[in-house]
Amino acid sequence: MSPADDPCIGDVSEGHILRAILARTPAAEHALLGPGDDAAVIAAPSGSVVVTTDTLVHGPDFRLAWSSAYDLGWKAAAVNLADVAAMGARPTALLVALAVPRDLRVSFVEGMADGLRDACAALAPGCAVVGGDLTVSSVLTIAVTAMGDLEGRRPVTRAGAEVGDVVAVAGELGQAAQGLAVLFGRFRDGDDPVPVDPAQLAAGERLALNAQLRPVPPIGLGPLAAIAGATAMMDVSDGLAIDAGRLAAASAVTIALESRALGADPARALAGGEDHALLATFPSDGPLPPGFRAIGVVQPPREDAPVTCDGIAADPAGWDPYRDWDATAG
Amino acid sequence: MSPADDPCIGDVSEGHILRAILARTPAAEHALLGPGDDAAVIAAPSGSVVVTTDTLVHGPDFRLAWSSAYDLGWKAAAVNLADVAAMGARPTALLVALAVPRDLRVSFVEGMADGLRDACAALAPGCAVVGGDLTVSSVLTIAVTAMGDLEGRRPVTRAGAEVGDVVAVAGELGQAAQGLAVLFGRFRDGDDPVPVDPAQLAAGERLALNAQLRPVPPIGLGPLAAIAGATAMMDVSDGLAIDAGRLAAASAVTIALESRALGADPARALAGGEDHALLATFPSDGPLPPGFRAIGVVQPPREDAPVTCDGIAADPAGWDPYRDWDATAG
Repeated sequence: MSPADDPCIGDVSEGHILRAILARTPAAEHALLGPGDDAAVIAAPSGSVVVTTDTLVHGPDFRLAWSSAYDLGWKAAAVNLADVAAMGARPTALLVALAVPRDLRVSFVEGMADGLRDACAALAPGCAVVGGDLTVSSVLTIAVTAMGDLEGRRPVTRAGAEVGDVVAVAGELGQAAQGLAVLFGRFRDGDDPVPVDPAQLAAGERLALNAQLRPVPPIGLGPLAAIAGATAMMDVSDGLAIDAGRLAAASAVTIALESRALGADPARALAGGEDHALLATFPSDGPLPPGFRAIGVVQPPREDAPVTCDGIAADPAGWDPYRDWDATAG
Repeated sequence: MSPADDPCIGDVSEGHILRAILARTPAAEHALLGPGDDAAVIAAPSGSVVVTTDTLVHGPDFRLAWSSAYDLGWKAAAVNLADVAAMGARPTALLVALAVPRDLRVSFVEGMADGLRDACAALAPGCAVVGGDLTVSSVLTIAVTAMGDLEGRRPVTRAGAEVGDVVAVAGELGQAAQGLAVLFGRFRDGDDPVPVDPAQLAAGERLALNAQLRPVPPIGLGPLAAIAGATAMMDVSDGLAIDAGRLAAASAVTIALESRALGADPARALAGGEDHALLATFPSDGPLPPGFRAIGVVQPPREDAPVTCDGIAADPAGWDPYRDWDATAG
């Protein structure tokens, strides 16, 4: 597309941009009133709505040298859908607040819209963007709000794990962190990120990079876990050791993990975040729902060790190379 | 407070900051599950939820030289509550996604929380912050999502105005724009904003400044208008001429305004935005609900003039001094 056909955000009206986005977004099945008015109206047939918000900021959360517009839209949707799924709810609608630099091309925003749409279609069919807001900022910022329906069930919080329950997980552990390690280790020029050269990647690294840039959390397994009787659930965003510690604290228990259940690299599985796997506890007297695998058991609280691995207190320090990374360059 | 007692955001954990905010935020009446889990759960007793999002970005939308932390929290709540009210719904809950500079003080975020809390208490009792997200960004950004309940009513959209209806408004028109004119006209050093000197302000200017920095939209009148049979409604955020044009387009009518109903300065009332007054149309055979005043009538569509004032096509150009204002300085 020539620049003339692809104007900068600052050179066209908000209405023009919103129409371009909406043309790429399907009507939401659950929207009683879609975009275009002061607010949208979403069906909440079971009398409540699950709601969460999560923001991606250029610098701390992503770099344009590494993420495409499509990647960003996809990831912004996926991380929010995972929080809805982690309550045992089915996602129904997204709101997207974009703050974008004035010199960004309209095609970039369209690419984000495509990523948002495709992530919804792939991970949470029936869920779609029902509204949003567009402002100008020197820092590209994507704040997504996701809503979901509990379909008559009680929400599955972090607080219900019982001693004796099975600890289980659905989805990847450590893949996204491995992808981030590839980016920080190999695709930088000094402090500046440089575009990924696919020729430098082994097949496993390609998978890890995809997990980092376009995560595929098991959204549909959230409601399934709730139906199967999950006593507690959360999404693993900051690493298994940190997040299991949060579940342990909320439930006043200790989560005892077994390293042999954590794959080829248990240390990375414990420390690496951003896969948005679902961590849940289930009564021990029934089968785990499809997609979940046992990784430990719930034990009485040990004050010195809310999370153990093979009986030893797990180090709760997650691994976040973005921390202290200069948020203004690149 | 000494700096030692008031650390920078970048020097404390997200958990510390969120606890500081939540300590200042009352429990939300409509929250079945409040902050602290992967998502909140909000009651939606009538089987649907009204939802909207609006973002304030430092530079295009506000300047720290002019707005206090409390002002920002208040305004971020008010502008979103107004969008919910404009559907005829009662606000139930807010989500707040903050992206803040690393060197911002925790007390600043607490001040925003106070402003959010007080705006809810004053404008929409029962509504409160139920969740949010905190990230680091070099540009202070506040993205609020507001939810509301229709209490069994149909949403009042922009599309229902009928020829012969009375056009009415509740709230101020042009006050916030006058306040902005005071700021841009008198409290700058070259291109840089400077703090307001109260001694330079006449009483009327003080009111106008308050309307700009801490707007008081008539939130409670939104549900009242719906109950009274409003056929169309919206909030006036970009100026009466622009927004009445949007309502006219959605309803395929012309909105015929009368200047003598627009106060002492009809030009400013037509052009000035950000008061978040409620613009609504009502059947002509009944009384207007309390708080609304007639400003015109709905006429058959005139292609050349979706909005008229005293029979003459109104100029839709709103007045926005922030437009083209350098978004990086100040």
